[in-house]
Amino acid sequence: MPELKFLLLTHQPHLSPSTSRPKEVWKKGGRLFSILLAVHLVLLACTLVSSGAFEKIAVHDYDVFFLLTVMMLIVIIWIFFYLVGTSKRQNAILYKDSHAGPVWLRGGLVMFAIFSLVMDVFKIGYYSSFENCQIAIKIIYPVVQAIFVIIQTYFLWISAKHCVQVHLDVTRCGLMLTLTTNLAVWMSAVTDESVHKSHSKFNSTTEQSAALIMKAGKSSSADICQCKTQICEIFQNGYFWLYPFNIEYSLFASAMVYVMWKNVGRLIDDHAHLVHRLKFRLFRRTFFVGIVLGLIVLVSGLGVLIVYEVQVNTHSNDEKKNQALVMYYIFNIVCLSLMSAVCIGGSIVYRFDKRDMDRHKNPTRTLDVALLMGAALGQYAISYYSIVAVVASTSRDTKSALNLTYSLLMIAQHTFQNIFIVEGLHRQPPEERHKTSSHRKDLYGLTFVNINTISLRIPDGGSVLGSSTPPNTEAIQASDDVQSIRMPKKVNWRSKALREISLFLLLSNIILWIMPAFGARPQFDNKQELDFYGKPMWSAIVDICLPFGIFYRMHAVASLLEVYITS
Amino acid sequence: MPELKFLLLTHQPHLSPSTSRPKEVWKKGGRLFSILLAVHLVLLACTLVSSGAFEKIAVHDYDVFFLLTVMMLIVIIWIFFYLVGTSKRQNAILYKDSHAGPVWLRGGLVMFAIFSLVMDVFKIGYYSSFENCQIAIKIIYPVVQAIFVIIQTYFLWISAKHCVQVHLDVTRCGLMLTLTTNLAVWMSAVTDESVHKSHSKFNSTTEQSAALIMKAGKSSSADICQCKTQICEIFQNGYFWLYPFNIEYSLFASAMVYVMWKNVGRLIDDHAHLVHRLKFRLFRRTFFVGIVLGLIVLVSGLGVLIVYEVQVNTHSNDEKKNQALVMYYIFNIVCLSLMSAVCIGGSIVYRFDKRDMDRHKNPTRTLDVALLMGAALGQYAISYYSIVAVVASTSRDTKSALNLTYSLLMIAQHTFQNIFIVEGLHRQPPEERHKTSSHRKDLYGLTFVNINTISLRIPDGGSVLGSSTPPNTEAIQASDDVQSIRMPKKVNWRSKALREISLFLLLSNIILWIMPAFGARPQFDNKQELDFYGKPMWSAIVDICLPFGIFYRMHAVASLLEVYITS
Repeated sequence: MPELKFLLLTHQPHLSPSTSRPKEVWKKGGRLFSILLAVHLVLLACTLVSSGAFEKIAVHDYDVFFLLTVMMLIVIIWIFFYLVGTSKRQNAILYKDSHAGPVWLRGGLVMFAIFSLVMDVFKIGYYSSFENCQIAIKIIYPVVQAIFVIIQTYFLWISAKHCVQVHLDVTRCGLMLTLTTNLAVWMSAVTDESVHKSHSKFNSTTEQSAALIMKAGKSSSADICQCKTQICEIFQNGYFWLYPFNIEYSLFASAMVYVMWKNVGRLIDDHAHLVHRLKFRLFRRTFFVGIVLGLIVLVSGLGVLIVYEVQVNTHSNDEKKNQALVMYYIFNIVCLSLMSAVCIGGSIVYRFDKRDMDRHKNPTRTLDVALLMGAALGQYAISYYSIVAVVASTSRDTKSALNLTYSLLMIAQHTFQNIFIVEGLHRQPPEERHKTSSHRKDLYGLTFVNINTISLRIPDGGSVLGSSTPPNTEAIQASDDVQSIRMPKKVNWRSKALREISLFLLLSNIILWIMPAFGARPQFDNKQELDFYGKPMWSAIVDICLPFGIFYRMHAVASLLEVYITS
Repeated sequence: MPELKFLLLTHQPHLSPSTSRPKEVWKKGGRLFSILLAVHLVLLACTLVSSGAFEKIAVHDYDVFFLLTVMMLIVIIWIFFYLVGTSKRQNAILYKDSHAGPVWLRGGLVMFAIFSLVMDVFKIGYYSSFENCQIAIKIIYPVVQAIFVIIQTYFLWISAKHCVQVHLDVTRCGLMLTLTTNLAVWMSAVTDESVHKSHSKFNSTTEQSAALIMKAGKSSSADICQCKTQICEIFQNGYFWLYPFNIEYSLFASAMVYVMWKNVGRLIDDHAHLVHRLKFRLFRRTFFVGIVLGLIVLVSGLGVLIVYEVQVNTHSNDEKKNQALVMYYIFNIVCLSLMSAVCIGGSIVYRFDKRDMDRHKNPTRTLDVALLMGAALGQYAISYYSIVAVVASTSRDTKSALNLTYSLLMIAQHTFQNIFIVEGLHRQPPEERHKTSSHRKDLYGLTFVNINTISLRIPDGGSVLGSSTPPNTEAIQASDDVQSIRMPKKVNWRSKALREISLFLLLSNIILWIMPAFGARPQFDNKQELDFYGKPMWSAIVDICLPFGIFYRMHAVASLLEVYITS
């Protein structure tokens, strides 16, 4: 096979001389292989995890643990290779994506990493409590996971912004492997938690639930080895309580790794490389309305959750259970109505916002939007199934009316909130606009002029406006001047309102994350859907969709923080 | 609310004067609403269809039919509005996307539309056979569907290439509604067919399967109304046989509508607007190797399918069933091995191919690639579950060895074929290269120079090559001359080989489409996975994933036809 060498000459006007170095011939082709690798690994992991979740199927949890351990070890080796080899090479990292890995995302990652480490310690402690009847892999797995979490967090902290320019194929495959491993760990954790939840829901009719939770832990030798000691039970309950943090850790890491993968081989225009130095000033120029309202919702939500959990899980009479459910629904309906109203208000405020839309290529933001829209599907699906069940079934009591309202509001709130966040993420930060406005026009080749502001009367026909390009370049300057004079008084109330709104939404989303993440399952406690669809189908729907719904809340919090800071 | 008007000035160098007319301020925002509409409708349809599939759930097929009928009527109204209103407006369609709706896609659409109409006639005939005990909606539904198919096919035939510039929001929503309706019809058809298949597989132990198939038709009044007459049975069997065509029709229409949606508001650069006039010359300059081999595979495959269906469905002893299964697996293994080898050969041929990669924005191709990769997931998932079942279960006989080989080859073949097709779709057609090569360089700002051809010895350091831009512009001219001299003899064998390969793959994919589309279900006949996962789980996996696998074959045929024509 004759060796073909391609020499690449770039003479694009936008690129500065330093960027005209060999670039990939065909980026899509370079990505193809790593995508295929990821697809196969994800499917293999998915098959094993889903098979391992059913007790009847002859695939055990240690098979899954074995696969995950091997994957994590390979990723650890690759990360060492990247840190020592790839990133140290000459010209390896010429550009950094200023949007990737913002400090709050990395901060969140470290926080979740710490909780994950505690969880691993608990797991090791739990499995060490009865070492005689456990397979070695069950202790090796949390140990390797702890090492993996530490190394990966360090790796992402220092290299989340990198746009790698060397070892393109190896780096892409390594990153995809990392992504896949995180997703596999996430699937395994979600499945394990769902199995645990459904076991403790449907089986623990007696007080002695320890043995049953044990079974829910799905150790195949559960019948021989019982978790009897006090410390063992603490370890077990502890690690199940910490699962939500580990789940979020995997998703945060996946998102950051994906953005790194998108940035491999990316040449960022030097002009566009504006470093965003946004100061994170909490409470700057706010009226404290948003934060106070949000905190009220948060605290009352915590109260509702505790009462609900106690009432439902202590297995008193149905009357009290129903009361707890009604209370839960009413709290959620009030909270969701408030949030929907506030989101609509925010979208109206944006109508008055004259800031330009930011059209830069920004993989982080594209991913954020896609994840928000995608993760919302989980809650949408649950809500639609609930609605169909309530409408089609004949019973017409308070509980079903509340359930219907709750489901409808859930759909409305997700929709309005997504519109609000997407619009917010696409606005330019106000601080930068003045410094960069004249510059950005060259980049976009597009300028927005507010006709009212410059009080120019031009006939309405679009073609007339479009064809009169030369005279308007002066008008742009004029409008800029006018805008910068008008700015202080006009912008103030708008950005203040947006900040109040995003803070309130942020806090409300936190409580709506806490509730399902820490065990509230009105979908099962309210027997309506369970009776309508039957246990297997409804469990499958909730267990598959709810993790996405929970992730949505977490992700919305991160996005709202960004909206808060940029507004 | 003060009225804000945005005046947009475009001064991008690439755009010709005629394109500098008012464009959307924020395209993503314009798309957001239509996406949300589509998401909600798809989820609602999905909920109803999946609930309607289970007999225990109090959602009936006529609920689904009602929803679909309403959706189709709205789409028909919108299409009339589009044809009479939107497309007749001044400046409504300034550009046409030359890649969208190629003639073979539209031809395929018309062919499937005709079969769908025949299916609707059969359905009307079937439901009219016992009008006393059927609900009116069951006859209205196929009537409306027939009208919908005719109008939609006409609409797509004349406007698939349109880049609409007026009524942007209405058009986007209308197109998304059309897309959603097609997907809902597809879901309903796939579910109905799967239910029918599984009923006739698991229930028809007696010869009198008519009553059971009737139940599989899922008419809720099945117990009262029996399909007893000869003509009624013919109608029923007829429409189930024609389902695969209707399913493909919906998917073809969805793909074309999606491309139209992507093209709404798109301004195509006039320079890039090269009309591809590729003559569809079958058998041009081929050695007939591909077509002969392909036809052998096709005919023998048909033979295998008929023998298999007869042997398995006549319920003779297990011995004969096993023989049929072994025969089926051996045929598939031979076929898949051949195809994999040929795909690898094709990819090697591409290594010698000096044609430029086509980097134009091309929504049709992006969609094609995404659909190929996405639809392959269906078959991947089935194969992975099969592999896990075979590996984890203890039985080690010929059948399980064949099943394992078959699953592994299925994965390999999908992967290699995807790589081959993706690479083929991204090459420029050879005829155009000479006419447009000098022109394209300006557009991309990128030029590929084969160092070996022009025998220039430059040191290997990337920075040296990159910085010497001016002298190499002459070298480009030189290399072009050299290439055009070398072309005739070199290109010939390569494009001939690629044509042979794509024709063979095309015919093989047709037989691999026919087999599952017309009822071969080795996944169920081979009891291995059924015993391992249990009936509910394995049925769910196969019923959800197999439609994607079948669609993959159909779509691969269309893509291979394109590769054949462009190579």
